Amino acid sequence: MYSSKSLLTILCFLFLLLSISAQKYTHRARAPCKEMVFFFHDIVYNGENYKNATSTIVGAPEWGNRTIMASPNNFGDLIVFDDPITIDNNLHSPPIGRAQGMYFYDQMDTFSSWLGFSCVFNNTDYKGSLNFAGHDPLMNKTRDISIIGGTGDFFMARGIATLSTDAFEGSVYFRLRVHVKLYECWKLL
Amino acid sequence: MYSSKSLLTILCFLFLLLSISAQKYTHRARAPCKEMVFFFHDIVYNGENYKNATSTIVGAPEWGNRTIMASPNNFGDLIVFDDPITIDNNLHSPPIGRAQGMYFYDQMDTFSSWLGFSCVFNNTDYKGSLNFAGHDPLMNKTRDISIIGGTGDFFMARGIATLSTDAFEGSVYFRLRVHVKLYECWKLL
Amino acid sequence: MYSSKSLLTILCFLFLLLSISAQKYTHRARAPCKEMVFFFHDIVYNGENYKNATSTIVGAPEWGNRTIMASPNNFGDLIVFDDPITIDNNLHSPPIGRAQGMYFYDQMDTFSSWLGFSCVFNNTDYKGSLNFAGHDPLMNKTRDISIIGGTGDFFMARGIATLSTDAFEGSVYFRLRVHVKLYECWKLL
Repeated sequence: MYSSKSLLTILCFLFLLLSISAQKYTHRARAPCKEMVFFFHDIVYNGENYKNATSTIVGAPEWGNRTIMASPNNFGDLIVFDDPITIDNNLHSPPIGRAQGMYFYDQMDTFSSWLGFSCVFNNTDYKGSLNFAGHDPLMNKTRDISIIGGTGDFFMARGIATLSTDAFEGSVYFRLRVHVKLYECWKLL
Repeated sequence: MYSSKSLLTILCFLFLLLSISAQKYTHRARAPCKEMVFFFHDIVYNGENYKNATSTIVGAPEWGNRTIMASPNNFGDLIVFDDPITIDNNLHSPPIGRAQGMYFYDQMDTFSSWLGFSCVFNNTDYKGSLNFAGHDPLMNKTRDISIIGGTGDFFMARGIATLSTDAFEGSVYFRLRVHVKLYECWKLL
Repeated sequence: MYSSKSLLTILCFLFLLLSISAQKYTHRARAPCKEMVFFFHDIVYNGENYKNATSTIVGAPEWGNRTIMASPNNFGDLIVFDDPITIDNNLHSPPIGRAQGMYFYDQMDTFSSWLGFSCVFNNTDYKGSLNFAGHDPLMNKTRDISIIGGTGDFFMARGIATLSTDAFEGSVYFRLRVHVKLYECWKLL
């Protein structure tokens, strides 16, 4: 036979242990455990703006080239970028980090792209990077891409980023609003 | 001293809370929480099939070009694609979505590629996208790649997709069978 | 009223069930559930080393080409690689697998790159692949990238890889030390 009190104590202990260990390391919930909003600014090299450009075409279909977007719908153009991140929508605000990676246009009948990039922070608030991958149908007012991992302050993070085009000037400048919502946050040691 | 009954009640309550909260939002299990099978169809631009093509070479090694696959083993060719997804293996079936992204050939001594793409669904059954990344050793009958995230109906999904080449005609057309197995499914609000 | 003993028994049973089911399938903890250290070796094609090269430029900005890295800081160069993995830092050791994928240089004012690749193992110890994505600021002594998934023995794995440049000879050869730390390990059936 067992004593219900001693069993209770053991149970209590086990339960607390489980709860603590589960919550100490990870947080997984339907409500975001972390949210951030920022902007990034992309100025594509067009053959004449080398000094201001933050990105450049590095791959294009046979019918395209590396200074003018391919027609139709930029399909096949692959761009590498090194874009400043700002807290507001002003290109000239002091950058809080950089968005670095690539995107390419992958739809024939409309503007749509696929992104693989990192947001890299190295300031007093955050040190670390968030890694993004996914489909970005540009013509939609908002669209979601996946946050597939993170490092530093964002160790092992997962989540969703809601993107919206905050400004679009010809094929040279665009500004993206990024609303980061993390649903998996791992605590740091 | 404590009352074993009141403690029990608290414990019970805590336990139920933990169980519910853990299961309400996420499902993680060794058996798939969601399976799908579909096909996608890739017709590579070869300089003469512009009207039918669904993909095109946008990067190639120095010894290659953008209309003919590089030799040997297509190594270094980078292809952007916008492929129809069908429920059966018929290219002319009504598409249920699109597979959009890129692949490149990354092995020198055999055909092997690396994929980064999304399957985008916008029909009565599913609205949302699944994001894929991984190694695809084409000559193997089946091979697994990672599902690294999802949006919409596939919010925060993770899993594995088993790929098999259902048809292969020269270097212009291939059809891939995709068996999606999600092992992490997050419930929607 | 309820009997505290029968309730206890049920509670115990439920608790054990939850603990077992949670641990049977997945392991998630702040300490790595799996660690590995290995090296990979990259020899970039420069127009004259075709026989030894393990990688090649396939995309470049307008001011670059496919045999010489672009200036400044290789920005915009996209490289596809098929690199041998060795257990020690000797290029001529028997490879235990291959690192296959791409990287591109994505910073204008220093050397920094973004990686999307797989480490593919097919030996007596491991069969399967690990998929990586993320930002790699080359000039830092160590830097972390995300392990976003895995297949085979690394089914559904997630984690971090700490990279360090073990050797760097001009713009043709470099050797990367990779310290894999998995924080999510899914047991095999």
